[in-house]
Amino acid sequence: MRILFLGDIVGHPGKQMVEQWMPKLITHFRPDLTIANGENIAPNGRGITERLAESLFDVEVDIITLGNHTFDQRESMQLISTDRRIVRPANYPQGTPGQGYTLCRAGDGQIAIINLLGRSFMGDYDDPFRTADRILAEIGDQTAHIFLDMHAEATAEKVALATYLSGRVSAVIGTHTHVQTADERILPGGTAFLTDVGMCGPYDSIIGFHKDGVIQKFLSQMPTRFEVPQGEAQLHGVFIETDSRGRAVSIERISITPNRPWQTNGFLN
Amino acid sequence: MRILFLGDIVGHPGKQMVEQWMPKLITHFRPDLTIANGENIAPNGRGITERLAESLFDVEVDIITLGNHTFDQRESMQLISTDRRIVRPANYPQGTPGQGYTLCRAGDGQIAIINLLGRSFMGDYDDPFRTADRILAEIGDQTAHIFLDMHAEATAEKVALATYLSGRVSAVIGTHTHVQTADERILPGGTAFLTDVGMCGPYDSIIGFHKDGVIQKFLSQMPTRFEVPQGEAQLHGVFIETDSRGRAVSIERISITPNRPWQTNGFLN
Amino acid sequence: MRILFLGDIVGHPGKQMVEQWMPKLITHFRPDLTIANGENIAPNGRGITERLAESLFDVEVDIITLGNHTFDQRESMQLISTDRRIVRPANYPQGTPGQGYTLCRAGDGQIAIINLLGRSFMGDYDDPFRTADRILAEIGDQTAHIFLDMHAEATAEKVALATYLSGRVSAVIGTHTHVQTADERILPGGTAFLTDVGMCGPYDSIIGFHKDGVIQKFLSQMPTRFEVPQGEAQLHGVFIETDSRGRAVSIERISITPNRPWQTNGFLN
Amino acid sequence: MRILFLGDIVGHPGKQMVEQWMPKLITHFRPDLTIANGENIAPNGRGITERLAESLFDVEVDIITLGNHTFDQRESMQLISTDRRIVRPANYPQGTPGQGYTLCRAGDGQIAIINLLGRSFMGDYDDPFRTADRILAEIGDQTAHIFLDMHAEATAEKVALATYLSGRVSAVIGTHTHVQTADERILPGGTAFLTDVGMCGPYDSIIGFHKDGVIQKFLSQMPTRFEVPQGEAQLHGVFIETDSRGRAVSIERISITPNRPWQTNGFLN
Ligand SMILES: [Fe+2]
Ligand SMILES: [Fe+2]
Ligand SMILES: [Fe+2]
Ligand SMILES: [Fe+2]
Ligand SMILES: [Fe+2]
Ligand SMILES: [Fe+2]
Ligand SMILES: [Fe+2]
Ligand SMILES: [Fe+2]
Repeated sequence: MRILFLGDIVGHPGKQMVEQWMPKLITHFRPDLTIANGENIAPNGRGITERLAESLFDVEVDIITLGNHTFDQRESMQLISTDRRIVRPANYPQGTPGQGYTLCRAGDGQIAIINLLGRSFMGDYDDPFRTADRILAEIGDQTAHIFLDMHAEATAEKVALATYLSGRVSAVIGTHTHVQTADERILPGGTAFLTDVGMCGPYDSIIGFHKDGVIQKFLSQMPTRFEVPQGEAQLHGVFIETDSRGRAVSIERISITPNRPWQTNGFLN
Repeated sequence: MRILFLGDIVGHPGKQMVEQWMPKLITHFRPDLTIANGENIAPNGRGITERLAESLFDVEVDIITLGNHTFDQRESMQLISTDRRIVRPANYPQGTPGQGYTLCRAGDGQIAIINLLGRSFMGDYDDPFRTADRILAEIGDQTAHIFLDMHAEATAEKVALATYLSGRVSAVIGTHTHVQTADERILPGGTAFLTDVGMCGPYDSIIGFHKDGVIQKFLSQMPTRFEVPQGEAQLHGVFIETDSRGRAVSIERISITPNRPWQTNGFLN
Repeated sequence: MRILFLGDIVGHPGKQMVEQWMPKLITHFRPDLTIANGENIAPNGRGITERLAESLFDVEVDIITLGNHTFDQRESMQLISTDRRIVRPANYPQGTPGQGYTLCRAGDGQIAIINLLGRSFMGDYDDPFRTADRILAEIGDQTAHIFLDMHAEATAEKVALATYLSGRVSAVIGTHTHVQTADERILPGGTAFLTDVGMCGPYDSIIGFHKDGVIQKFLSQMPTRFEVPQGEAQLHGVFIETDSRGRAVSIERISITPNRPWQTNGFLN
Repeated sequence: MRILFLGDIVGHPGKQMVEQWMPKLITHFRPDLTIANGENIAPNGRGITERLAESLFDVEVDIITLGNHTFDQRESMQLISTDRRIVRPANYPQGTPGQGYTLCRAGDGQIAIINLLGRSFMGDYDDPFRTADRILAEIGDQTAHIFLDMHAEATAEKVALATYLSGRVSAVIGTHTHVQTADERILPGGTAFLTDVGMCGPYDSIIGFHKDGVIQKFLSQMPTRFEVPQGEAQLHGVFIETDSRGRAVSIERISITPNRPWQTNGFLN
């Protein structure tokens, strides 16, 4: 199975970048399934709306994952609660609207997409390790193709979860730091791993937000409004191929920036 | 000026990896100066000792930077206090033993090496932005070649500091997360930047520590002793070249892992 | 039912203070049950041992609760795993040795003692609110007398939990900050509440630890060993009386310090 | 000198409570100076406005201290920048508008009022210990009457600062947790100390905010708007008397709640 995943889409520049490049990415990678993290796609970089989700579906994004900004736009509650193509972190507390994983058709099989939040330096969510165990038990033998977006800050927590799930899922791909890491590998048992996939959003920015605002925040320690600047954008993603048993056979990082219009780095098992 | 920098060296496997590869790295890159982050070189991954510092100097590491584990080995206090080749984070409180930056000869010029700690998700250190300002004022026109090791957790804080210092230092290279990022670039004014350079240490590990211990910590939330495992190791670093005015002209990531014995990724201005 | 509860016992001075005063407290309050938080009773202020637990049982402490230092002494694992008089926080992850609540006879009835950890500024534990719900369901109609030690840092989290459980438990008494608060009250439905009961330990100290060490830690930001000083001690506790339906009818703070040898402050419904 | 201090005033109910009780408090305590923490007086509990500051001055509050919510109301920037009766935390970074301490006449002498922020579980401010040292040096022998509002979360940090300044200031009174502690004492050298003075605001609330909102936040981990409820209010403060050399001779807690309309607890040296 051929899986394309795009990192946190930030604001309008991120959305535009995805819209512009998706046709080329599809032509190049011929994915059976495209997933994108949409937690920052709202104009202010916080949350998602129904209209913005639709704009991603329009360019052939199949599934949208989220993160700690899941519920930042009030109007998205309906979307998150009902749309089977939207996956919010599974370790939000019991009773949270929406679904923590979804199953869908891709290629000539099925795939499960899971979203989890880390806790280190993040918030008070349920245990992501045990939540993963529970979901894998629920998935059972419905499919061996399992993609997990681990939305977390700490490298240790992401590597630990991937190691814990090694051989039990097809891929653990980190999101949230908005900076792509260079450590793609395939763990024993065929689990593709990357600590962070990076983001799709403004290039001349601080992790997608206006440079001046973020620097001002660090300098002043005062409440500061972060804004998503306009201008040139970048796109980061990852392409994973699995065999018929759901084992990853390759993982390839994707990075498109104004300076380096198309760059991939691969890892073949 | 040609500068080689190696990320956090973790335990005995990290030290061995550096000892094994330094001759080849020197042959290949012909650095005028080699810097390494030594905050994790003690056998348990915490701190440094005089003997271990000497072992790095023996393989032609010129300068050792540190981080949040600077003072974890009591016996290193003397070393840190007196050795001009050791740089501890400059934003430890006033009166802290040791130096926050050093000036040394490299090639046919001078270079300043600065070490700073981030505060986001870290500890209660002095403001790294204003500390950088103060040090740059102290350096004045002694040299335009300035290398800064920004030891920090949060991507936003690292990118913000680099952006803040853009055009005022030759390079801002992040350390601490132990995972190399793929975002090397040269910021306006000639400041080479990489969010994190990664580490030198055990490959089959969780950021350098024994997998079982780290996973057990996340699963049990109990006090857990982290140990540095033996076995195959990896090395991560970065090579930067500056022009005569101290502006970066290239930055090249270095990654040596058991699977990919030598890989570099460059960025040319 | 008459319930006496003593706050975190810190080190040898805390133990001695409890040993010295328990006879007088028992004479004065005639408790049906005495509970003490023992998470800091080890000589270094971290954790508990079997011998130290026995010394509390010897002076008629009936039940020992714990906190974030529960597992700091390795040798206590056996004690915590098997002794029905020891209650460790119930929201440690599933599979943790020991019990999160216990039922015992007191007076002519039964009482349940629950221990929970807060998460704000603490660690990654399970949700204390839902854990409380689950335990209350398990207790069912076995008893209406329910005492809860909420071991937490943030005032908001403690008040929120008490408010959430108002009318469902007899008492929610906070521990962990080692400073007694002055906000005792009885919430609607008969739930006695106090944000923090304070500690039993060295008086001339910083929350039970040697003043110089703690100040040095704040000044230097270096690793610092905290020690429990010898010298005069203080004792803090709370006395609660419930009616036959398990509703609190009174809550009275107890504070014994070198300057004010016996002081209580009551709140009658 | 006779000093009256009121804890964090929360919203309209807090303001009304202060307006209602100040005449009686003044009659009873005959203060030479009244200080109040106004960081939560805005209707939503975040920050202050010029009009609200004036309403406090109108009821004979002389000096207003602040905290981590200092800059939450944009329109207060002018007030904070220019009014000598407003003191914002001194350890905001250099260049922050406003003043970190003020000197004013009280009785037949002078008094300095200092405001500091803690860092543990708070934000990235300058070192409160060294900032206190610097301010005390600036005050020099202008006055020996020095009142310090330590706005901090962690008990250890507050006790440590008070211990550090013992004998150098007249009083260190904690704010921020909104719950009054019961540990008033006079430290060696004549420094009155109380870990937290508590707040003036809604009684049937969670630290001043609507119970349902705060509980919902803990239960859902979603973004939740905290509101200040109307209804009965409480007032918490402290009264300190110093001798002519600026040494505290007494400290008396003040607590006025719907259930206990007037209660004080004193400590005489
Ligand atoms: Fe994001
Ligand atoms: Fe995120
Ligand atoms: Fe490190
Ligand atoms: Fe580090
Ligand atoms: Fe404790
Ligand atoms: Fe504790
Ligand atoms: Fe406040
Ligand atoms: Fe506050």
